[in-house]
Amino acid sequence: MDLLKPNPANSCPLTPLTFLERAATAYAESTSIIYNATTYTWSQTNRRCLQLASSIASLGIKRGRVVSVVAPNTPAMYELHFAVPMTGAVLNAINTRLDARMISVLLPHCESKLVFVDKLFLPLLVQAIAMFPAGTKPPALVLITDDEVSSSTTVNFHHTYEDLVKRGNPDFTWVRPDSEWDPMVLNYTSGTTSSPKGVVHSHRSIFIITVDSLLTWSVKRHPVYLWTLPMFHANGWSFPWGMAAVGGTNICLRKFDVALVYDLINRYDVTHMCGAPVVLNMLSNFPNAKPLKNPVQFLTGGATPPAAILLRAESLGFVVTHEYGLTETDGMVATCAWKPEWDKLTALDRAKLKTRQGVRTAGVTEVEVVDTHSGELVKRDGLSLGEVVVKGGCVMLGYLKDKETTSECIRDGWLHTGDVGVIHSDGYLEIKDRLKDVIISGGENVCSLEVEEVLYMNDGVVEAAVVARPDEFWGETPCAFLSVSGEVVEEKEIVEFCRERLPHYMVPKTVVVMEELPKNSTGKIQKGLLREIAKSMGSLSGNAN
Amino acid sequence: MDLLKPNPANSCPLTPLTFLERAATAYAESTSIIYNATTYTWSQTNRRCLQLASSIASLGIKRGRVVSVVAPNTPAMYELHFAVPMTGAVLNAINTRLDARMISVLLPHCESKLVFVDKLFLPLLVQAIAMFPAGTKPPALVLITDDEVSSSTTVNFHHTYEDLVKRGNPDFTWVRPDSEWDPMVLNYTSGTTSSPKGVVHSHRSIFIITVDSLLTWSVKRHPVYLWTLPMFHANGWSFPWGMAAVGGTNICLRKFDVALVYDLINRYDVTHMCGAPVVLNMLSNFPNAKPLKNPVQFLTGGATPPAAILLRAESLGFVVTHEYGLTETDGMVATCAWKPEWDKLTALDRAKLKTRQGVRTAGVTEVEVVDTHSGELVKRDGLSLGEVVVKGGCVMLGYLKDKETTSECIRDGWLHTGDVGVIHSDGYLEIKDRLKDVIISGGENVCSLEVEEVLYMNDGVVEAAVVARPDEFWGETPCAFLSVSGEVVEEKEIVEFCRERLPHYMVPKTVVVMEELPKNSTGKIQKGLLREIAKSMGSLSGNAN
Repeated sequence: MDLLKPNPANSCPLTPLTFLERAATAYAESTSIIYNATTYTWSQTNRRCLQLASSIASLGIKRGRVVSVVAPNTPAMYELHFAVPMTGAVLNAINTRLDARMISVLLPHCESKLVFVDKLFLPLLVQAIAMFPAGTKPPALVLITDDEVSSSTTVNFHHTYEDLVKRGNPDFTWVRPDSEWDPMVLNYTSGTTSSPKGVVHSHRSIFIITVDSLLTWSVKRHPVYLWTLPMFHANGWSFPWGMAAVGGTNICLRKFDVALVYDLINRYDVTHMCGAPVVLNMLSNFPNAKPLKNPVQFLTGGATPPAAILLRAESLGFVVTHEYGLTETDGMVATCAWKPEWDKLTALDRAKLKTRQGVRTAGVTEVEVVDTHSGELVKRDGLSLGEVVVKGGCVMLGYLKDKETTSECIRDGWLHTGDVGVIHSDGYLEIKDRLKDVIISGGENVCSLEVEEVLYMNDGVVEAAVVARPDEFWGETPCAFLSVSGEVVEEKEIVEFCRERLPHYMVPKTVVVMEELPKNSTGKIQKGLLREIAKSMGSLSGNAN
Repeated sequence: MDLLKPNPANSCPLTPLTFLERAATAYAESTSIIYNATTYTWSQTNRRCLQLASSIASLGIKRGRVVSVVAPNTPAMYELHFAVPMTGAVLNAINTRLDARMISVLLPHCESKLVFVDKLFLPLLVQAIAMFPAGTKPPALVLITDDEVSSSTTVNFHHTYEDLVKRGNPDFTWVRPDSEWDPMVLNYTSGTTSSPKGVVHSHRSIFIITVDSLLTWSVKRHPVYLWTLPMFHANGWSFPWGMAAVGGTNICLRKFDVALVYDLINRYDVTHMCGAPVVLNMLSNFPNAKPLKNPVQFLTGGATPPAAILLRAESLGFVVTHEYGLTETDGMVATCAWKPEWDKLTALDRAKLKTRQGVRTAGVTEVEVVDTHSGELVKRDGLSLGEVVVKGGCVMLGYLKDKETTSECIRDGWLHTGDVGVIHSDGYLEIKDRLKDVIISGGENVCSLEVEEVLYMNDGVVEAAVVARPDEFWGETPCAFLSVSGEVVEEKEIVEFCRERLPHYMVPKTVVVMEELPKNSTGKIQKGLLREIAKSMGSLSGNAN
């Protein structure tokens, strides 16, 4: 038995790129992409990707080099998810919401050789390149144009996207990875410009997250997938490759617009879509929203969806699956797997259960919650807080050029997510906060999210963020930053409001009202900055005493 | 980029055993198994498997040792697919249709330490052990009993199945593989007793074939799966593990009985089942067959299903997917992936297309047809014959204790299937024959299956097998062995019948009528034996001239 070793017929590297090759045969004449007046079949998409890959290779892009793209969810963005790794290069999809300064840090950081840039984002990119550190060679640019956005450009382009496709060789032999551990994609997570965190995934991890996500979400053959989730967010949670595996139709769109989304759902009989809870919120709050003709599977994650939003969305016909994942896993590692016996509950109770992150997906080996001090698994009591840790084939190789952060994140055999959660008695995970946002007051853990939830219940509160303020006596106390609507809200009033709804130690001891809370380029409230402000206020007890 | 290597958080071995662990949480109260009056939930099945595994380990079974089972599709057979590898041991499911002599060769060959035997097959096993070569230590036996079959036994058993389950530890820490390449299952393919071919698969290959099969067959969450396909046939094409991944309900049954199968389909709203074309044939020829209430997905393979059978089965409500696979891949590597545009064809044309083996599954890297001499890919013209070769993660580690046969089968980077086929212009594979059954007459390839198909069109023919007979002039000529019904069939008549329907070189030059054609223990016609008979007849031209 011991003599039987891996052999060349079974140890060929796992890679999701084979899905496209197969789609060209299995789904040859089925529609792969619809975008405005453009429609492709899978045999055309395969051909276009081969041509594009051959042109990229002919530009001298070598195995392991980085090729970037700054584009919305257009057909070009979709095709690049195949064509770039088909040359052996690493795809780096850049968040189009970043500012020029940030991009001017990222591109030199990954030594990007070639950047595909959508017409609309050309000014942003030109500005970013102008900000490159002196002596840094700028990457070559390829302009992506399409029938929707027209603009004239004064930049002299060597290449345009469609030219590269046109002049490429459809019989190109795509470059298979030498090893399934070869890097395939690079995604920067939002962070400060001082230390960009570039998450690198291998062909193997992308293969695993892709098949796992299809399986866990029960995606059948020939879905109609609407691209509401940006592909630059963790590669659209792996679904660019997933759609090739199941012969789906990709409905592309430039920009999230509620009326357009409803129009596309009806026009193309959309079956599947993804998005953050805020997308679900916009869809269900749309004044003209009518119940859907056919149920639409909606995968949501990135933040916990409030029960009220789930309730409203489901009443319109969205069948919501709540997932939990990270850029470090390129997609979901847990879902709130629905139990048939829950169907009997009231709609509100069902929605409340669905806010839980749930149970690991079929392909992920382990998701656990461990005590941050002892490293032991926490009790399954729904109360014991700990850090969520993950182990599985979809975990990243690491952060690019950052050994230190990589080994802080991956240690003791686990990926440390930085999320704090509990495990309920039925084994279901519920995320409570970000680890760094937990406030430790008098030895008690205060989850900032739980305090914020109560603050949001106050009609006057528009935005709320709770962080730790140093305290000589308690160690830390909760400090609330708010933006409010209408009349002036009194600090005392807010404290009183919280006292009626929260244990004493969780009530904010400080309330600061701002015009608007500071946010980063992806729209997230900058709690780090607020923490700095709270720190600068000094110790509360120290001041008071 | 090169500095990023596999790490402990992402290189944990792939194994399908994690599906059960997850099912115990994700599908805790959902029904896992139904068998007569017995019903289990997934949390119970997980617990029973842990208990059983702990008991097997306590019997001294070590990592890498073989544990065999001789049983029909009962709950015990299902549970052993998890419990045995959960101890680090290798599961060997033995075909219950084998005779004692064959089993007396296999068990010593794999040095099986422990055999689980169903009550009904105890006499067979006792007989087999009595035939062991002198000095070979017999394995320990565990008796499986259930509520269906009663029999008294005179053998003194140390252990019974339910006792092992009962006394086991539900908190047992199951043994994870050290490497995903560790052996997990061993399946003997039908062959002669002189050289048993024991196919060994790793945890990795079983993980891959399992998720791939679910994905390719579009199996959604909570299917109801009827166990018509024996689990001892390539582990039921991976579905024991697959059902744990999707939280299916396994409907177990001892024996294929058409009336019972229809009864179970209706009683439990079966959604999925598998079987050889002969099963489909029996189902569609059942005199009392009524159209199904709900469509049932039926996966068929192992032989090419005749179009007429497909037609009849689909008219009853079976939705047939035609797959191609081998014991050496433990499941399907190609399916006749259905194209929406084919829906417009007539029922007969649809059925004819469905007899093709089709296109590789999403998880398989490559399936090709290569010229047996040059090793080059054949033309995609539907005419050029070659051997089907496979490359992918589900390919076996090799044959146990048989380096020579392993390297004959796995060479040039491919698994050589021994099947002969063509690739049509649309890229779809069609199997024509077994390589060793092809007759080369005057330089032309004659596929025995094509000649047999014509012979079966003659109403008098019950069984037909065509093999090569040596010929001094032509090299080989087709020789037909037949069993016939009713009145005597003249050799001349048969030749004439074929002449009207086949090119001259394909027409049998010799026709031999027998009472019944010789078959092996799995019911396959023994073409090897018939070839020997044909050879012993001497050269036809030589005799004739």
